[in-house]
Amino acid sequence: MALWDGRFSSGPAEDMVRFSECLDVDLRMAAEDVAGSKAHATMLGEVGILDADEVKALLAGLDQVAEELRTGTFVPTPEHEDIHMAVEARLTEIVGPVGAKLHTVRSRNDQVATDVRLWMRGHLGDLRAALADLVSALLDRVEADGDVLMPGFTHLQRGQPILLGHHLLAYAWMVRRDAERVDDALKRLDQCPLGAGAMAGTPHPIDRHRSAALLGFAAPTDNAMDAVSARDHLCEAAAACAIAMSHLSRQAEELVVWSSAEFAFVALGEGYATGSSIMPQKRNPDAAELIRGKAGRVFGDLQALLVMVKGLPLAYNRDLQEDREALFDAVDTTTACARIAAGVWRTLKVRRDRYEAVLKGDFLLATELADYLVTKGVPFREAHHVVGRIVGALEAEGANFTALDAARLATFHDAFEADALAWLDPRAAAERRTSFGGTASREIARQGWALRAWLSE
Amino acid sequence: MALWDGRFSSGPAEDMVRFSECLDVDLRMAAEDVAGSKAHATMLGEVGILDADEVKALLAGLDQVAEELRTGTFVPTPEHEDIHMAVEARLTEIVGPVGAKLHTVRSRNDQVATDVRLWMRGHLGDLRAALADLVSALLDRVEADGDVLMPGFTHLQRGQPILLGHHLLAYAWMVRRDAERVDDALKRLDQCPLGAGAMAGTPHPIDRHRSAALLGFAAPTDNAMDAVSARDHLCEAAAACAIAMSHLSRQAEELVVWSSAEFAFVALGEGYATGSSIMPQKRNPDAAELIRGKAGRVFGDLQALLVMVKGLPLAYNRDLQEDREALFDAVDTTTACARIAAGVWRTLKVRRDRYEAVLKGDFLLATELADYLVTKGVPFREAHHVVGRIVGALEAEGANFTALDAARLATFHDAFEADALAWLDPRAAAERRTSFGGTASREIARQGWALRAWLSE
Amino acid sequence: MALWDGRFSSGPAEDMVRFSECLDVDLRMAAEDVAGSKAHATMLGEVGILDADEVKALLAGLDQVAEELRTGTFVPTPEHEDIHMAVEARLTEIVGPVGAKLHTVRSRNDQVATDVRLWMRGHLGDLRAALADLVSALLDRVEADGDVLMPGFTHLQRGQPILLGHHLLAYAWMVRRDAERVDDALKRLDQCPLGAGAMAGTPHPIDRHRSAALLGFAAPTDNAMDAVSARDHLCEAAAACAIAMSHLSRQAEELVVWSSAEFAFVALGEGYATGSSIMPQKRNPDAAELIRGKAGRVFGDLQALLVMVKGLPLAYNRDLQEDREALFDAVDTTTACARIAAGVWRTLKVRRDRYEAVLKGDFLLATELADYLVTKGVPFREAHHVVGRIVGALEAEGANFTALDAARLATFHDAFEADALAWLDPRAAAERRTSFGGTASREIARQGWALRAWLSE
Amino acid sequence: MALWDGRFSSGPAEDMVRFSECLDVDLRMAAEDVAGSKAHATMLGEVGILDADEVKALLAGLDQVAEELRTGTFVPTPEHEDIHMAVEARLTEIVGPVGAKLHTVRSRNDQVATDVRLWMRGHLGDLRAALADLVSALLDRVEADGDVLMPGFTHLQRGQPILLGHHLLAYAWMVRRDAERVDDALKRLDQCPLGAGAMAGTPHPIDRHRSAALLGFAAPTDNAMDAVSARDHLCEAAAACAIAMSHLSRQAEELVVWSSAEFAFVALGEGYATGSSIMPQKRNPDAAELIRGKAGRVFGDLQALLVMVKGLPLAYNRDLQEDREALFDAVDTTTACARIAAGVWRTLKVRRDRYEAVLKGDFLLATELADYLVTKGVPFREAHHVVGRIVGALEAEGANFTALDAARLATFHDAFEADALAWLDPRAAAERRTSFGGTASREIARQGWALRAWLSE
Repeated sequence: MALWDGRFSSGPAEDMVRFSECLDVDLRMAAEDVAGSKAHATMLGEVGILDADEVKALLAGLDQVAEELRTGTFVPTPEHEDIHMAVEARLTEIVGPVGAKLHTVRSRNDQVATDVRLWMRGHLGDLRAALADLVSALLDRVEADGDVLMPGFTHLQRGQPILLGHHLLAYAWMVRRDAERVDDALKRLDQCPLGAGAMAGTPHPIDRHRSAALLGFAAPTDNAMDAVSARDHLCEAAAACAIAMSHLSRQAEELVVWSSAEFAFVALGEGYATGSSIMPQKRNPDAAELIRGKAGRVFGDLQALLVMVKGLPLAYNRDLQEDREALFDAVDTTTACARIAAGVWRTLKVRRDRYEAVLKGDFLLATELADYLVTKGVPFREAHHVVGRIVGALEAEGANFTALDAARLATFHDAFEADALAWLDPRAAAERRTSFGGTASREIARQGWALRAWLSE
Repeated sequence: MALWDGRFSSGPAEDMVRFSECLDVDLRMAAEDVAGSKAHATMLGEVGILDADEVKALLAGLDQVAEELRTGTFVPTPEHEDIHMAVEARLTEIVGPVGAKLHTVRSRNDQVATDVRLWMRGHLGDLRAALADLVSALLDRVEADGDVLMPGFTHLQRGQPILLGHHLLAYAWMVRRDAERVDDALKRLDQCPLGAGAMAGTPHPIDRHRSAALLGFAAPTDNAMDAVSARDHLCEAAAACAIAMSHLSRQAEELVVWSSAEFAFVALGEGYATGSSIMPQKRNPDAAELIRGKAGRVFGDLQALLVMVKGLPLAYNRDLQEDREALFDAVDTTTACARIAAGVWRTLKVRRDRYEAVLKGDFLLATELADYLVTKGVPFREAHHVVGRIVGALEAEGANFTALDAARLATFHDAFEADALAWLDPRAAAERRTSFGGTASREIARQGWALRAWLSE
Repeated sequence: MALWDGRFSSGPAEDMVRFSECLDVDLRMAAEDVAGSKAHATMLGEVGILDADEVKALLAGLDQVAEELRTGTFVPTPEHEDIHMAVEARLTEIVGPVGAKLHTVRSRNDQVATDVRLWMRGHLGDLRAALADLVSALLDRVEADGDVLMPGFTHLQRGQPILLGHHLLAYAWMVRRDAERVDDALKRLDQCPLGAGAMAGTPHPIDRHRSAALLGFAAPTDNAMDAVSARDHLCEAAAACAIAMSHLSRQAEELVVWSSAEFAFVALGEGYATGSSIMPQKRNPDAAELIRGKAGRVFGDLQALLVMVKGLPLAYNRDLQEDREALFDAVDTTTACARIAAGVWRTLKVRRDRYEAVLKGDFLLATELADYLVTKGVPFREAHHVVGRIVGALEAEGANFTALDAARLATFHDAFEADALAWLDPRAAAERRTSFGGTASREIARQGWALRAWLSE
Repeated sequence: MALWDGRFSSGPAEDMVRFSECLDVDLRMAAEDVAGSKAHATMLGEVGILDADEVKALLAGLDQVAEELRTGTFVPTPEHEDIHMAVEARLTEIVGPVGAKLHTVRSRNDQVATDVRLWMRGHLGDLRAALADLVSALLDRVEADGDVLMPGFTHLQRGQPILLGHHLLAYAWMVRRDAERVDDALKRLDQCPLGAGAMAGTPHPIDRHRSAALLGFAAPTDNAMDAVSARDHLCEAAAACAIAMSHLSRQAEELVVWSSAEFAFVALGEGYATGSSIMPQKRNPDAAELIRGKAGRVFGDLQALLVMVKGLPLAYNRDLQEDREALFDAVDTTTACARIAAGVWRTLKVRRDRYEAVLKGDFLLATELADYLVTKGVPFREAHHVVGRIVGALEAEGANFTALDAARLATFHDAFEADALAWLDPRAAAERRTSFGGTASREIARQGWALRAWLSE
């Protein structure tokens, strides 16, 4: 029976009941709702609004409701409208009239706002852990295969020889920032709306700092209207998810491309791929494709939240009921994708020798020759010009760098000495890039230590 | 057991099973899947690939599966991976080995593509009907209250006096175009993918025109790769939904604003509002707020689909599995919102006399005086200048147009004659606007007839 | 000087002037604005609101303004606020006081709505032509290289042998639908808002059908409020652009992947790529990357328009001024991308022999053997099982299909006869798929004719 | 002349030149580009790669280029392709061949990445300041009119009496969080990409910490590939902008609604509104409408960036060139809107007495009576029931709360005593809500001090 019955001569239209209920979605916040109610009851007891027996009865009753919800003994129905009414209704069945006192000095507005923040704290925490674990999985892969030589790509064209570890660490840093964005979102939502009432606070002598502390929040929210109206913490969380998904989609794309027969650089572990009953070589990188495909839904969730909020006056409007579905989907999807990505990286088979031979003699080493000349004092643009002539000459002969010897090199520029040829080894080329953040092994190791240290913080 | 087992030494990772299954979503296409299979089996029989007994057994078995799914006797489980495998598995239990022949000359790619188009045909049809009914509901309201006088707003400031019918018809035309966009989407997807195979067609002598005809499609798709790879029909449907939601959100906004105590122009029917147990005057326009809030999710669904498709190579990629959830949500939400909006308009209480008195004497009639002068041959800009002086004079006296008489008017410009005062009646002002599409009653009637004729097409 | 000066004691805030002007954007509609004004003046003359001399003066003056704008002799400044005021101001300088009569029975609302529709008609026409030309470019490429053999990919894994023409035609059909969506958008916006006034029509005896006809519209808009408030035609155009961009981004992705050294299947023409001064083999597929990258901005434009409209009450609100920038960008970007894509396809170098040799012996032909068995009456699932065993045996030996002869084949299943081996030729495999829409040459030819016929409509 | 000419037999296609140039956009980073080059040259000198004279010449030349760009003496043309080439070309004209040495140990990839971060640091700083000033403007308005009594709205229905200050402070807290999100974005991008090279670092002995320090960055980026490939700092900035715009759009909506003749609660200052030459009462809230309308473009910019990044492999791809336009637009638009909003709040005219009289006797005070009973120990749900009966009785008589006296009240419940009537004063009702974050004056003052303290940090 709705709170406001008795005033209306008829109930809601039948289609309106289905249209407006949100129980399915809210059921996911049952545990949070009970926790919030327990903190509220405890505080009401401490400030004298409820007596000790009432509080005791309420806490015991709430524990029972929580247990019944957990075990499925109590299943809310659409008549309950939302999870808050369902919990209160069942509580009153259990503890009798005192159950009705739970809602003293509380409105659904501050109650649901508190539930959502509690849910976010828990689930953003899980997401944060999943992202950290993905960094860890990338580092594991770096440890195992970080020394594999491959071309660094620009425009999906081979550019400079790099080590796989350098490439994977680029992702590790991106994912670390994703985790830090989640940290910031968590920090910013760490205020408790409980006690804000419908929007204006209350004339009763409640202790909002106490409720906040009981629920583990740093503080109560400063303004009651802000507390029930704002959704920027949801938007920020969804934005953090969307950005993380952009990074996950990039990793996914590369895994798909690298898994092709043409690149043949990696194969996804069997647990994350599908095969074909009659094409044994085929290992479809399904996990990567699904991650890539799911980027869209999370971008869409973020937009859904922003659009929902656009142009809404204060304070509560029923539009805001739409907030949870998009939030839950964004956080759930991103967490799942981060976990799957970690699994994919951990079980990935890298074809270690796929590129090393390919790279020898490749004109992508031309920049090495230019860099050699620069170390001999030749201006950068001139060095490039010289190397262009070398390449042109070899190309005209149908040859490549393997055809060069020291004497021939010297014909192109006086600055070429005997040691120049060594610059044409692709692994040496990668290892030479020891500048801070370069692809050399020692820089890979440095970054690994830095990220491991961050993980163990 | 997956189709491709036997090749992999281990099964999918546990988290990957959950991550990749789509049974929940696909269950909504069970009827379509069975219908597609029946058409396929019938066609295979007609071209001689299956014999008559096989076809008969398959059709009977498929009917039984459909019935079991409908009644819940057969409930697919995650092990089935998707609805197609579930149907085939249950079919084979029922009819024995011939069940395995159903998949002859068919791949999951063309099968699912067909299912989705069948689902779209049915559900876009429902959406189209809901939009047409919303036009009808708006016309009902125009018939009942179209003559109510109100200010037309620009910038939410009162502009010119109009009739409510004029305002509501603006929405009716928008919604009609929404319905026409759905028609266009339906027209464009009216091609059957069945028989496209994985992407390349088949060497077997199938008759795709026959399959298409059996399923009620206008034709088979022209290119097998297009048939399994394209998702523009989903994007187009979602775009039609998003645009319709933009119109629904505008109506919703106005209903919310008009329901405020300050505007007090309408009250939502009790079936679509919520009240307050102790504030009897309060009738929250929940239905309108929810519609407005749901615009965001549909815009998000559209973006999700576009982003999913962005940058995907041909042909099938697993990313595309994500398509249905966004599509279903967009179509379901828009259909529900259109239906609720129709209910809201049909049960709306319009406060017929709220504005008529308010508008008399209001300076918003100033444009009427200017228009009067223009009919007397005074150039438009000069007419405005004259009226500006009248308003300034009255305002300085703290008066309004009710203080004017013919003599006073004539002091401002020679062209003012005795009939000028009649132009200051707000209803007459509205009725005077008889230009095609103007707010006069006769134009409202014309539009009503035109829209009713369209509805009855 | 603003229209409404004299009432306010001070002018707009300095930052507000910059914030609110839209002249830069509107300048693109100068020609449309003059055309609309000429039609309006002509109609006013025909119905007797202006006399013949006035009309003559206005038309001559408007032609002069148009010419001055075209040649840059007259350059509107921010003081003019918008293009409409600029044209009127310059017109009045040229023709004297009669210039002020142009705005008789017209408001800025219907004027700008007309300008936008005229702009859309012209520029969506250009987009339509660009999309049609892209279909033509794809067909040209099909004619030149449609017979090239390649693997059809699913999951970016090689699937079945197909002809390049089959692949390119999939895009041609997508782009054709993109063009048809533009047609539908054009059809739906083919109504003239001129004469709708601010929102309510006018009491003056204008002839809106005549104005519409003069401007080449099919009809006037039916409802004056709809005429000035609706933006669904912009949203629909942007949606058509976004969907087209999704297809363009897919082509772009494939061009990038196919251009990699690993795939090495195509090279972009020099006009659409960038090279490296010292890496001669490098040809970065810049045009394709830019097209892919621009998908985002068009998706963003669509979202911008939808969000702008969300929750806006009728009729005009200043928010709507934001509509043009997103519209123009979406249409301009999509048209440019379609044109560039046509150029890319026309100048593309296809490495004709890249895959033919690769595909011989490849296990992707396994489906052919299964299909062979099906033609011999072996049930599909059994056929797959048999072929799985063949592949397993060969793989265990480190061999592939080239190791098979008829005798060996027969050991796996009685149904294998001497003709089975012929099924292992990849080109024959492609040519066998003659089902409607299949990859066989004759189906490619049929589609080419159908699309050429559509182009010549 | 392009860097890579000489290898291609022909130049870029004509349409490709226009399609690919980004000079217009990049010109906004001219100052940043010169600053980055100066730091690079200085560092190269310090590590001995350039000699002191070369550095001196380069620094002087760069200063001259900067000055010429600032004064418009040097205007880059499309032939320069981008700002980086333009600066280098002009520099070489000025200083001779040494100009070519500037690009030593640098690629366009790390150069542009550095430019963008420098631009962001400056412009996000401006945005941050604009948001802080908006908080300040809101606080100014609170000081001036914070004591004005108004109804707090839920569902745009009058709810509880509040003080305007309470409402405005809700926005102040939202905007403060918006500023803090900008702070976090600034903190996270505070790493210098200079020296990352194309993606792999460099073999030359550069000092990236020194370059970073010279440009005022906290540190160099840790990974060269991440440095040139990542765009999450742009996405994060755009997300911060989008969320801020959601708050700005809410304020804008309320200003529009409150400016209506029906609410008549505020009037925008003349500098931020437009009037009508003949409707003196009309003051269109244009500034607010434009802010609300611009939310869409910023949401669209965010989506554009996310979509651009989706599915992009590492490292640089030309798609990424699209990043700046969306970034610049998001930051510029949000900064402008924040500034305009501050101006609007500062110049807003609040109709102080609009609601105080209206609220007396209003049934919205019913919750006060219920709260009174709760303070007397009546359970919340029972209290509501009692008050429901009172309201029902009064309503039946066509009366309101002004008809109540103490005696009558007592007939409804024993707990009503003489002091109950005082609870029906709306201002007292607001002042009673002294709970932390409640609407009472003292809580408004507390929040004002807290926010002023934050501003002065």
